[in-house]
Amino acid sequence: MTTYTEHITLQTDKRRELFYITPRIGGAIQKSGITDGLVMISVLHSNAGVFINDDNPGLLRDIDEWLEKLAPVRDDYHYGSTHESNAGTHLQGLLLGGGATLAITGGKLELGAWRQIFYAELDGGRPKRVVAKIIGV
Amino acid sequence: MTTYTEHITLQTDKRRELFYITPRIGGAIQKSGITDGLVMISVLHSNAGVFINDDNPGLLRDIDEWLEKLAPVRDDYHYGSTHESNAGTHLQGLLLGGGATLAITGGKLELGAWRQIFYAELDGGRPKRVVAKIIGV
Amino acid sequence: MTTYTEHITLQTDKRRELFYITPRIGGAIQKSGITDGLVMISVLHSNAGVFINDDNPGLLRDIDEWLEKLAPVRDDYHYGSTHESNAGTHLQGLLLGGGATLAITGGKLELGAWRQIFYAELDGGRPKRVVAKIIGV
Repeated sequence: MTTYTEHITLQTDKRRELFYITPRIGGAIQKSGITDGLVMISVLHSNAGVFINDDNPGLLRDIDEWLEKLAPVRDDYHYGSTHESNAGTHLQGLLLGGGATLAITGGKLELGAWRQIFYAELDGGRPKRVVAKIIGV
Repeated sequence: MTTYTEHITLQTDKRRELFYITPRIGGAIQKSGITDGLVMISVLHSNAGVFINDDNPGLLRDIDEWLEKLAPVRDDYHYGSTHESNAGTHLQGLLLGGGATLAITGGKLELGAWRQIFYAELDGGRPKRVVAKIIGV
Repeated sequence: MTTYTEHITLQTDKRRELFYITPRIGGAIQKSGITDGLVMISVLHSNAGVFINDDNPGLLRDIDEWLEKLAPVRDDYHYGSTHESNAGTHLQGLLLGGGATLAITGGKLELGAWRQIFYAELDGGRPKRVVAKIIGV
C-alpha cells in the first residue's frame, strides 16, 4: 500500500474557464504505479469546482447556465459589502463540490463509458491549483 | 492494509427509480474482511446519483420533487438541440453528487442512527452500474 | 499504512449553528501520526452538512441565506405530514453535502490558502456527532 501526490497548476486566463483534466489524473495514476485503490481530487481555492460529467459542449453550457441560475453572480451579497464581489462564485463552487473521489481498478480509473473529470474555474485570471492524492496497492 | 472492489448492477425498469443499497454495501464490507477504513461508492453513469438520508417515503418524495424544482427535466436545454433530451437528469445527478465516501469502524459502516445509502436512477430503463471500493485494514 | 478514527461531538444549543472544525481535524491528523494520505470527514445526522470555504462572516451569511433560498424550511413538505417538520433542513444537508475528503501531505492538511472546514448544524439543540477517518502512511 502506498500513496502518490500530484499538484496540477492550471493557467486560467479568463474569469470563467473549464478544464478537461481526465488525462492529467490518468497520467498521475500511471506515474503512481498504483493499480488498485482510490484517487481523490481536491480544489485548493473556493471559487472553483471539480465535477464529473459527459464531455458535450451543449451539456457543459447547460451546466454553466444552471450554476448561474441557482447561484447568480451578483453585486448584492453580504460578502461584497466588505470584501470581494465574487460571493456568487463561492456558492457555485459549493454547488459543484470542491472534489471527487474515484476508484482505480486494474490500473484504470473507473469513470464509466462517457464520464470525464472537469475542473471549473469560476473566478480565474491567475494560476490555480488542484491536488490529486492516490492511495492503494 | 488491503483493497476490495464490488460492482453492483441495478436493473432499472423505469426511467426514475430509487434503490436502497445499504445492504449491498454492508455485504461488500463483510466480504472484504476490512474492519477499519473507507468505503467509496461511485456511480458509473451521469444520469444518476448516490445520496445518504433517512428512509422515509414522504422525505424521499420531497427529495425527488426538490430535484425536479432545482433542475427541471425540460426539452429546451442546449444538450437536447444536438444530443439527448435528458440534460435535466444530468443536472439532478450533479445536485445529488455521483458518489459518497464513508467510514468503516469496528467492522461496521458509520452512517449514524437513521441514515441509509440510496442510488437514484434518473434516466433508467437498462442495467446501470455502481462501484464500491473498500480500502483499509 | 495505518488508519486513525476520531469522533467529534458538537454541543449544538441552537437550531442552526456553524462550527469551525479545522483545528479539530488538524489535531486528529497530528494524533494519528499519519503524514501522507487522506482524511474523510462525515456527518452522522441528515440535518447537517460539512463544507469548505473561506472564513468570512459576510460570506458565511450569504451561504446560509442561499441554503434557505434553494431549500426553504417550510411546513408543507410531504415528510411533515406524517413525521418531522424539518424536511427543508434535510434538503439543505443534501445541498451542502454530508462529508468531505481532503489530502494530507507532509503532515499538513491541504486546504489552500484561505479555505476552512465548517460543520453546519441545521436542526440542532442536542449533541451531534461527526467522524473523521484518517488513512495513510
